[in-house]
Order: sequence, then C-alpha cells, then structure tokens
Amino acid sequence: MRIIIVGFGVVGQSFVKLMLSRSADLYSQQGMKPRVVACLDNSGSAIAPAGLDAQRLLDAKKMRETVGAYEKDGRRFDALEIIEKVDAEVMLECTPTNLNDGEPATSLITSAMRNGKHVICVNKGPLALAFPSLIELANYNGVMLRFSGTVGGGTPILEFAKRCLKGDRIISFRGILNGTTNYILSKMEEGWTYGEAIKDAKEKGYAEANPSLDVDGFDAAAKLVIMANWIMGMKVTMKDINRSGIANVRLPEVRNALERGNAVKLLAVCDSRRLCVAPTEVAKTDPVCVNGTLNAVSFSSEHSGQQTIIGRGAGGMETASAILRDLIEIRDATFS
Amino acid sequence: MRIIIVGFGVVGQSFVKLMLSRSADLYSQQGMKPRVVACLDNSGSAIAPAGLDAQRLLDAKKMRETVGAYEKDGRRFDALEIIEKVDAEVMLECTPTNLNDGEPATSLITSAMRNGKHVICVNKGPLALAFPSLIELANYNGVMLRFSGTVGGGTPILEFAKRCLKGDRIISFRGILNGTTNYILSKMEEGWTYGEAIKDAKEKGYAEANPSLDVDGFDAAAKLVIMANWIMGMKVTMKDINRSGIANVRLPEVRNALERGNAVKLLAVCDSRRLCVAPTEVAKTDPVCVNGTLNAVSFSSEHSGQQTIIGRGAGGMETASAILRDLIEIRDATFS
Repeated sequence: MRIIIVGFGVVGQSFVKLMLSRSADLYSQQGMKPRVVACLDNSGSAIAPAGLDAQRLLDAKKMRETVGAYEKDGRRFDALEIIEKVDAEVMLECTPTNLNDGEPATSLITSAMRNGKHVICVNKGPLALAFPSLIELANYNGVMLRFSGTVGGGTPILEFAKRCLKGDRIISFRGILNGTTNYILSKMEEGWTYGEAIKDAKEKGYAEANPSLDVDGFDAAAKLVIMANWIMGMKVTMKDINRSGIANVRLPEVRNALERGNAVKLLAVCDSRRLCVAPTEVAKTDPVCVNGTLNAVSFSSEHSGQQTIIGRGAGGMETASAILRDLIEIRDATFS
Repeated sequence: MRIIIVGFGVVGQSFVKLMLSRSADLYSQQGMKPRVVACLDNSGSAIAPAGLDAQRLLDAKKMRETVGAYEKDGRRFDALEIIEKVDAEVMLECTPTNLNDGEPATSLITSAMRNGKHVICVNKGPLALAFPSLIELANYNGVMLRFSGTVGGGTPILEFAKRCLKGDRIISFRGILNGTTNYILSKMEEGWTYGEAIKDAKEKGYAEANPSLDVDGFDAAAKLVIMANWIMGMKVTMKDINRSGIANVRLPEVRNALERGNAVKLLAVCDSRRLCVAPTEVAKTDPVCVNGTLNAVSFSSEHSGQQTIIGRGAGGMETASAILRDLIEIRDATFS
C-alpha cells in the first residue's frame, strides 16, 4: 500500500517509526508492505513513487527540521498537487487540529477522496465541523474515511463500540474524553488550585501554552461529535454540542463532591435527551471515574448492560498504533 | 442459519428470547434469519427442519419443564443422534460447565465439528481442559469454534483483545474474571466476614450451593486458560494454571490492604513469567480494581499502553448477546 503523509509532527513521525519497527511482522502476519510515497510538512516535501526510505525521512526531519531536506535539491510541491498527482492508495492526514474552519485538512481530505484515495485522519477539526458531509463524500467516491486516532489515542474506543458490540444496540454513552482536563481535575482533588494544576500540566507537556482547546471543552466536544456520528448514527456537528469547560470549577466544589464520595469530571454525555460536555459529579465507584490523564467511556447497551473501556487518550506512538489499525482495516476491506 | 441448541437452561432460553425480540432488525440490519431446528434438554428434545416456533419452545420449557413437551407425542432423541442427522450450520452448546472431564460437552462439540457444523460454546469445561486440541479439530474440519460468552458474559473481552488491538501486540494481561468472588471480597472490604459475605452471595443468587467452582478459583482459572490460548497464542490447559482461591482470605488481610490504599482481589495474571489466579493486592486507583460483581481486564500492549475493559461478567441475556455476536461472526465469515 502506498501512503501519502500530510503533516509530519509527532504523530506522523511516530507512525513512520512504528512501520519501521514492525515491517517484518506486518509482512509475515498481515501480508502488508506499506510504503510512504510522499511526505509533506510546513516547509517542504519528499516524493518517491517506489517508496521513501523511512529512516532517511526521519533523519531529515530530525536534523534539518523538514522532510524537504530528504533530497538535496528537493523541489517543493504543494499538498493539493501531490494528492492529485502522486499515485497512492491512502492519504494520512496529520496536520494540526483547527476547530475554526477545519483547514487545511478539510480541503486536503476532500481532494484525496475525490481522487479516489482512502483517507486516515487523525485530525479532529474536519470531522467535528463536517462529519456527515465528509462521510457522504467518502461513500459517493467509494473510498474509506477512517479516524481511530481522533478519539482515545491508542485506546480503541470507536472500534470497541462498532465491532465488539455487534448484534447489540448501544443506547447511550458517557465518558471522560480529554486527558489534560482530567489531569487538572485530579490534581484539584488532591488540593491544588486550578491555577497550580494548569501550570503543572503545562510544565509536564499535557497542556498547550494556550490551553483553551482543552479546558474550555472544545477537544472533548469534537470527540463527542465523532462518537455521536460514528457510533450512534446521529448527524451532528460542533454547534449541536452543549459545551462548558472546567475554567470555572473551584476547589470548594471539588471538595464538596469528594465528601459525597464523588469526583468532579469533565463528562461528555450522549443519550436520548442530551449531547453535552460539562463538569459533572461522578461517583468514585463508577468505572468511568478514572484519574490522571486517562480517558474512559461507558457504553450502555440493550442486552449486555454497561461496559467501560479505559486507556491513555493521547501520545504519539499510541496514536500511531491507531493509524496502523485503520490501515489494516482499509487493506482488509479493499484488497482482499 | 439453522441452529441446534444443546442444553436449554437460562442462557439457552435467553438466546431464544433475544432472537425473538430482535428477529426484525436481525433481518433488516444483518440480513440474517436464524432459526432453531432442534433443541434438547435433560428430559427431551424438539425437532423441526423448517424451524421450531420460538415462543412455543419457551412455553413448553416454562410450563412443562422440558422442550420434549413441544410436540404432544415427541419422540426422545439422543443428542449425538441429532447432531449427526439434523441438518444445521451451527450447534450451540449450553450444557452446564464440568471442569472434571468436560463431558458431555466435549463429545458433543467434537461430534458437531466432525459433522461439519460450526460450534458456539458457552461452556468453559471443554475449552479449559482441551482448548488446543479443540481448535485443531475445528481447523482440521474447516469449521469455526466460537466462545465469546465463556469470558466476561456479555462484555466482549475476547473480541476486544483480538480485534480492537489488531496491529499492536498484547504483552500481558491481568484481571478480575469472576464476579462471585469479587462480590464477596467487596463485601469483606465493607467489614463483613467471609462467612457472612458468602451467605449473602448465595441468597442473592451470585454463588451456588456448593461455591467451590467460584471461591476456589476454578472458574477464573478456566477463563484464564481460554484467554491465554485465544489471545496470547499459548497452548495451555487447566493444569498449567497456578491457582489459589479466596477461602483463606481473612478480614485483617483485607483491612491492612485497605490501609495501604489497596484492595484484595482474586486476580488472574498472564505474563512472560506467570499464569496464575490468586488473591492479590491491587491499588484502589488501578482501573482494574472494580467492585461488586463486575469483571475487569487490563491489557498491556506494546504501542498503545495499558487498556482496561470493564463490565458485568455474567447474566443470561448478557451471555445471549455474546452468542448472537458469535453467530453474526460465523455468518460473516462463511456465508458471504
């Protein structure tokens, strides 16, 4: 399978590293030989129809900060030009999340699908803003759009709901979808103030310099959109989510909850009445009540009751493993 | 798909009820029209090549305590005779678990596979005692042997590990695989003695009159065998499990653990060094540390870290939903 990688940050690089380390058993166990035929970042691009050398690609990025340094006199190509002209089965979209207009990812995905390429997207922006129309476009063009890495990092929350509960009906779900805010709230439970906790989260690399995406609930809401569409068959986007963040959660509130045997969590809920992200008291004994940077989702199904899945919600290599799952799924569905 | 049901207790009846209630959408969503062509219990049998009437079958069992009452003058057939002579794609094995010699289930499963029938087994006995040879026999005869309901009840623990972590490598797992002992230990944490807790568990229907299967760790060990074979590719049986139960756990031990922020759990562990079931201290903050009758398993994988799945580990309708998943999987793999 030939892959075009657009965006070469932590996740893109982790994916190439993962392919390198797993190439032998990917071939022996899955019969797969994925190769990257084009790779782009902000400052340059590298193209090789027979496959780029993965180690050299990683070195170019590490030493010279751009894949453009892969070739000595590498011409710089435009992403849309590459998507249109380079033969490949799959485009991997790894540009940073933009929840305002979803660009440049939306245009790139749209173009790839129109050009008959399957898309693996680890970018929540386009999906949060336009899930229903992107899926429609994928179906119209007869290609697959997959996005396991957008929810739960390496934790297969979407697959769990879609595959493992086949034959049952999921009625509702609720969960902690953002690790940064969960870390902050866990620290507040230990007595830290909101300000102290957020400072610590920034120092540890859990929170961005501008933490709004996390603390105002945008990230969790984007994931909720993806889950509501994919798992529950709803046709919703960001504007349908009733969202509030954790910026107004104060210590006394956390302490009072604790006295009642509860914890304050930024909970995403999808049921017949609600589609919301908000700070919510959750019983300490509830399986969904996890601490630190963990994510957790509880699904309620008609016959098999409540089932919870817990794991790390982020991380380069974790997300890369989700991309690999998507790649295997696309191969299984299309090349067999 | 034509199904032979052998053993018609709570699980078998729940499965027929589930098929009844879901028949319309099984047909519309999955294109499936499963029908029971033969059904046996201890005292009788019912056969109809065109499909038994599900409601009448349930009524016969309820009113007259045997499916033999389905026909007024129903002849009584032997299970092996039915498996050999009645045309069907799938045999559903629901006889009670026997961890001594696995019978009669082992003979029935073996016979069904030799007759080219796929098998869905919700009986831990045959699998715990002879997993490797049963899988070999299934492969040799070109049929599928599925057993989702044996581990986790309706919670898709086996599917999660097999399907959702595709492309990653599970290195080890540990979990609480028996709800009865977990209930007893949870009650002891609240200060009850072992004797009080087991009496309560019997009254609530969680523990059998002879609770040895649960409290001595046999049930958890049987599930561990199934998981070690199916998920980790080991070739092990009951005798390879280092097993100890909870009968010697006393209150001071539970209290001391609690003071250290831990709980005593009957933990099943599978890693490179150990394959065991034993009372073990688990940190209260560990996602696998669940209370009451819940089951929980944490998988450690190479790239996506630790992932935990939690749910009810038993129940008629829950297990029936696992059978339905197996049935859909067999259909997808063989009739498409």
